[in-house]
Amino acid sequence: MKNVKIENLDWITYQELTESGKSRIILPIGAIEQHGPHMSLNPDVLIPSHIGEQVAARGDKILVAPPISYGYKSQVKSGGGNFFPGTTCVSASSLEHYVFDVLQAYVNHGNREFILINGHFENSMCLCEAADKLVNKCKSEGISVKVYLLSYWDFISEATIAKVFPDGFTGWAVEHGGVLETSIMLKLHPELVDMSKAVDVEPATFPPYDVFPPDPSWVAPSGTLSSPLKATAEKGELILEECISGILSHLN
Amino acid sequence: MKNVKIENLDWITYQELTESGKSRIILPIGAIEQHGPHMSLNPDVLIPSHIGEQVAARGDKILVAPPISYGYKSQVKSGGGNFFPGTTCVSASSLEHYVFDVLQAYVNHGNREFILINGHFENSMCLCEAADKLVNKCKSEGISVKVYLLSYWDFISEATIAKVFPDGFTGWAVEHGGVLETSIMLKLHPELVDMSKAVDVEPATFPPYDVFPPDPSWVAPSGTLSSPLKATAEKGELILEECISGILSHLN
Amino acid sequence: MKNVKIENLDWITYQELTESGKSRIILPIGAIEQHGPHMSLNPDVLIPSHIGEQVAARGDKILVAPPISYGYKSQVKSGGGNFFPGTTCVSASSLEHYVFDVLQAYVNHGNREFILINGHFENSMCLCEAADKLVNKCKSEGISVKVYLLSYWDFISEATIAKVFPDGFTGWAVEHGGVLETSIMLKLHPELVDMSKAVDVEPATFPPYDVFPPDPSWVAPSGTLSSPLKATAEKGELILEECISGILSHLN
Amino acid sequence: MKNVKIENLDWITYQELTESGKSRIILPIGAIEQHGPHMSLNPDVLIPSHIGEQVAARGDKILVAPPISYGYKSQVKSGGGNFFPGTTCVSASSLEHYVFDVLQAYVNHGNREFILINGHFENSMCLCEAADKLVNKCKSEGISVKVYLLSYWDFISEATIAKVFPDGFTGWAVEHGGVLETSIMLKLHPELVDMSKAVDVEPATFPPYDVFPPDPSWVAPSGTLSSPLKATAEKGELILEECISGILSHLN
Amino acid sequence: MKNVKIENLDWITYQELTESGKSRIILPIGAIEQHGPHMSLNPDVLIPSHIGEQVAARGDKILVAPPISYGYKSQVKSGGGNFFPGTTCVSASSLEHYVFDVLQAYVNHGNREFILINGHFENSMCLCEAADKLVNKCKSEGISVKVYLLSYWDFISEATIAKVFPDGFTGWAVEHGGVLETSIMLKLHPELVDMSKAVDVEPATFPPYDVFPPDPSWVAPSGTLSSPLKATAEKGELILEECISGILSHLN
Amino acid sequence: MKNVKIENLDWITYQELTESGKSRIILPIGAIEQHGPHMSLNPDVLIPSHIGEQVAARGDKILVAPPISYGYKSQVKSGGGNFFPGTTCVSASSLEHYVFDVLQAYVNHGNREFILINGHFENSMCLCEAADKLVNKCKSEGISVKVYLLSYWDFISEATIAKVFPDGFTGWAVEHGGVLETSIMLKLHPELVDMSKAVDVEPATFPPYDVFPPDPSWVAPSGTLSSPLKATAEKGELILEECISGILSHLN
Repeated sequence: MKNVKIENLDWITYQELTESGKSRIILPIGAIEQHGPHMSLNPDVLIPSHIGEQVAARGDKILVAPPISYGYKSQVKSGGGNFFPGTTCVSASSLEHYVFDVLQAYVNHGNREFILINGHFENSMCLCEAADKLVNKCKSEGISVKVYLLSYWDFISEATIAKVFPDGFTGWAVEHGGVLETSIMLKLHPELVDMSKAVDVEPATFPPYDVFPPDPSWVAPSGTLSSPLKATAEKGELILEECISGILSHLN
Repeated sequence: MKNVKIENLDWITYQELTESGKSRIILPIGAIEQHGPHMSLNPDVLIPSHIGEQVAARGDKILVAPPISYGYKSQVKSGGGNFFPGTTCVSASSLEHYVFDVLQAYVNHGNREFILINGHFENSMCLCEAADKLVNKCKSEGISVKVYLLSYWDFISEATIAKVFPDGFTGWAVEHGGVLETSIMLKLHPELVDMSKAVDVEPATFPPYDVFPPDPSWVAPSGTLSSPLKATAEKGELILEECISGILSHLN
Repeated sequence: MKNVKIENLDWITYQELTESGKSRIILPIGAIEQHGPHMSLNPDVLIPSHIGEQVAARGDKILVAPPISYGYKSQVKSGGGNFFPGTTCVSASSLEHYVFDVLQAYVNHGNREFILINGHFENSMCLCEAADKLVNKCKSEGISVKVYLLSYWDFISEATIAKVFPDGFTGWAVEHGGVLETSIMLKLHPELVDMSKAVDVEPATFPPYDVFPPDPSWVAPSGTLSSPLKATAEKGELILEECISGILSHLN
Repeated sequence: MKNVKIENLDWITYQELTESGKSRIILPIGAIEQHGPHMSLNPDVLIPSHIGEQVAARGDKILVAPPISYGYKSQVKSGGGNFFPGTTCVSASSLEHYVFDVLQAYVNHGNREFILINGHFENSMCLCEAADKLVNKCKSEGISVKVYLLSYWDFISEATIAKVFPDGFTGWAVEHGGVLETSIMLKLHPELVDMSKAVDVEPATFPPYDVFPPDPSWVAPSGTLSSPLKATAEKGELILEECISGILSHLN
Repeated sequence: MKNVKIENLDWITYQELTESGKSRIILPIGAIEQHGPHMSLNPDVLIPSHIGEQVAARGDKILVAPPISYGYKSQVKSGGGNFFPGTTCVSASSLEHYVFDVLQAYVNHGNREFILINGHFENSMCLCEAADKLVNKCKSEGISVKVYLLSYWDFISEATIAKVFPDGFTGWAVEHGGVLETSIMLKLHPELVDMSKAVDVEPATFPPYDVFPPDPSWVAPSGTLSSPLKATAEKGELILEECISGILSHLN
Repeated sequence: MKNVKIENLDWITYQELTESGKSRIILPIGAIEQHGPHMSLNPDVLIPSHIGEQVAARGDKILVAPPISYGYKSQVKSGGGNFFPGTTCVSASSLEHYVFDVLQAYVNHGNREFILINGHFENSMCLCEAADKLVNKCKSEGISVKVYLLSYWDFISEATIAKVFPDGFTGWAVEHGGVLETSIMLKLHPELVDMSKAVDVEPATFPPYDVFPPDPSWVAPSGTLSSPLKATAEKGELILEECISGILSHLN
């Protein structure tokens, strides 16, 4: 496999690959967040990092930057909530400014096109704000920058959903720690999944509002929003392949 | 109708209604944003304000604060994008801090329970962050505060959707300036809707990512994400009633 | 009356009225603040909004933006102080950034000239800072922007003062909730004034310093800094006319 | 004279003078700002520093902190405007945070009562905000802090005005670089005043609004807002004595 | 080896290991920064991460958090400067706030003792500020938190220096990309070092000041501040062992 | 001596001296910090101010700005720590922004070259950040600005160290309140030094890490990090002369 991870390059090689803005830079952004008793805290970092590396490896002139590990505060309806031990999140402004500065530094090297691959739903608006501010600041300085922002699960087709969830799909909203993420982790990092600890839960249902402070009783004690029991590495491979090829097809 | 708008009260009346934290405070948050050639720029303010006033009028010990008019930046897939003339938006940190300070001021008066009624999807994360920070700051000072955060469309039932969209529903995502908002505005403010200017558009479809700067070609020239042609005041009334009674039933 | 309120326009009409920077934009900025037991909490919003609309209606190519309702912290000597229930204020930085962002958004639409009509003395420095930063940022981007900043009472002449205060004028400083604001509200919104609750107070006198935390004993229990008893709608009309025509004459 | 300047004390002496919050701390805040061709740039720093030292020397248990030299942006109507060479000003947030941190540090030493002596009108709201935030933060931590905020000229009586301005007084607003400040500087620092360079100007008159960017034609080319020609050291002494004794009488 | 990486734990295991504040948390902080043509961009991340893992593995009740990869701006005299392609740095406030938030999140889980292992000299003051603010904020909330801040090279003894630099040691200041870091990387990640590309340079000497913008001519074209040619994996092992055991001996 | 202090100039003289960017501006930055029982709190302000004035007086076209008195938080190993009474410090962001704004104001006057003379080690990174941001902001506006940043003690030669410390030099790190600063103060301000109160202490030794909150037992009760007993005015003169001439030789 090609060497696509920026951090592993020496600076002269990096310079050669990026001069004149000829490469696109992928920045994975994740979170450290509980994903149930059967899985490690880092799927939201590992999955977009892997997808980013595969997109870069298969694509042309694409490099992957070191991921941002700590993301925006977990919300009850999408990540179980910010009160679980192990869920380790930062504020909106901290994430926004940290991502902004990282992108600005890559712009300073001459890069002009970025793909933010998000692995944690709650990051979305912070990434949107960082991207918007970067593009406008650069524009005011006469520099034209383009930032793609995507969450990998948006590249999964109806057909794949049907295969992965043969008993019916209850929506991405409750896939936290469920079949989707567990399957991908079984494929990528089986050593970080212990299916013997997986807890069977009904898909979560929530009232049509949020409340602060969050109410822990809205979430199953295990922390997952649906059952991971039907996860398999094969499903994980199917999903990953579709995400990787989908992203590639949109970028090329 | 009871006098439920805080701004119209004198301070002694307000004090009597709120002392010992006995009232709940509704804060509507909207946006100034294009909604197509057939409608004014303020539906995202007027609709949650109206709903808030009705909830307060029909409920017990509920007051409505003056709304926040300018919201977070319009995004292409939910609001057409921040590049339309008339779409007048603020940054995430400005909205977050302004809302935080307003809530803090109401806490200083002794209020302890708030209902944020959001009329503009893009505001969600900023409101979430303001609410979370407020609750945690108050907690560290020994004050227990509770904030409900809701978007009014989340209270619309499947049954109502079937009635409002007899030809099929393409999702809230593309309801910007479409049947939903136009119907409500026809009910509430017919003088701000001119159906003769309404443009028929296919429901918008988007690639599975966002891009910055936004690409205006992703949106119909009219600025709406679906057609408003089948909007009626009757549909608006139906929707409003369901939102109002739904919010009330959850709060009581 | 011409349609001068931006929020009530559809975006295409707005675009036609503002393209090439041909319109001037009025932004009213107020406060939610106690004004005595006889009056609502919103005179500082309603008065500059009304003046702005009249200036726009009588002038040429002037539009009025939705007002900013929540202003900077009420001070004892000008607004009674930030400790009254109902006085609902934001910090200096929140107001400054919110106003800055709103003005920046209007600049993005192509507008180049703004008139900030202030209805709350304490806002002054925040508006000054927002205007100064906007003008300098735009200048560094090659955009020439002009911002007028005014408080409406500064347009009242000695002659009018003599008529409105036949028994002698004790200065704008103590007009909070007194004859000035009450008269204007009696003219504009008699339904929000209840003269039967008006309290007769001597014009406030203060030591030549401020103190934090504020000392409530410096202010009359009613919250007004002078007596509103001699307020009349006729006086209100006189004042309004002078402010409106005065602003117009300076702008044209 | 007693040693009242904190910066000249060793820490053990300072500790003895301040332990158990037994001293009050004066913090002078000024500006570096043009004051006409006949005077140095530092009257706004030197005058409140001198007054502070005299108040401390004559009072009981009062110390003077090192002054803050750089103040908020000079405005046309009170300081000639921020465009004069030599006028060297900081933003509102920078001044607010710097003053806040300095006060917080003195609170950390156990001090509980502060007197901010302001020498530059434009600083007022920034000092107000810093004081308000400090008092509230300390209160939330169970610490009771009191901050007096004053501008020295507010302690000058009508009688003194009559003596200093025998030909009539046109208001503090136009005293920038005029008889008031020049007289005080002639008394305190005659080496920093060169009356041979003093320019005779009519008291400035301004339209009833501000404009950004400022219009230099509103100000006399000399930069003063009224004529300093009738300034004398005797008048300066008279003014200073009244300010010093006035402040002392309010504090004791 | 024990499982000491927090990110690889499931949340229930993490909870068991950390409840009642019984574990200490190591947070490695690094940088993405050029280290010469012979080495990757990530030594400042990999080295403190490895040391942290070893300290945790050999010590008692110590866990390692996911590292912070992007650090404060590289300075000429310690890192070659922020103008090299590949050197990808963030501002002081972004780093400070990001680290603060991460630590705060771990405090929220009940952790009370932290060890920040720094791999990039320029991070020092930002980490100091984050730690100081965290400790003071927690203290004001009645929570006692302790943060150790260390840079690994400060644990290397004179004896080891004599062994590693038999020809004389020119100071840590010029060890950027030199024998120290290269030796450690040869031990830990030989695949990220290519000694055939190593450039022999004299130890850098600098004028006794810094200048902005930095002057690239102060640094050798290779980007290292001294020669890496005498680096060996054996030296790396020696250094690492001393750092790890030194940190352990101070913590136990 | 030439008049080199900006604050003592009238604005027209300042304008003549600075127009077309023909002067360089020195900005001294210090701290209010304990320096032992034998010395005042202001050596870190007075020393760089004096050096700046001498450099300006002896050099060509150099002016000195009013110093920044309050600096970044004292650290145990370099200044004894932020817990001593009298040590009065500000946060990193407050110092950074205050200095940035001051420099920006001088840039607005047309100045293009600055020399920051630092008297307090802990300020270094804040000054670095302010300078870096200023230079980059100005560059994006087409303005080329150069900022030198120096700490005066870096200009002292080995030969002078040998003379000043005939019994051996234990490093600048422990010179806080020791022979270096005391000697200079004896030369410049003997009235602020009382050698009869000087305490003999062994040079401080510290563990190879920092800890927050700081541990007061790491520092001698007197607050100095080494003994000032061998300080003399002659040594002070020697040091000062070398710093002044060294800075001049690098600038010319």
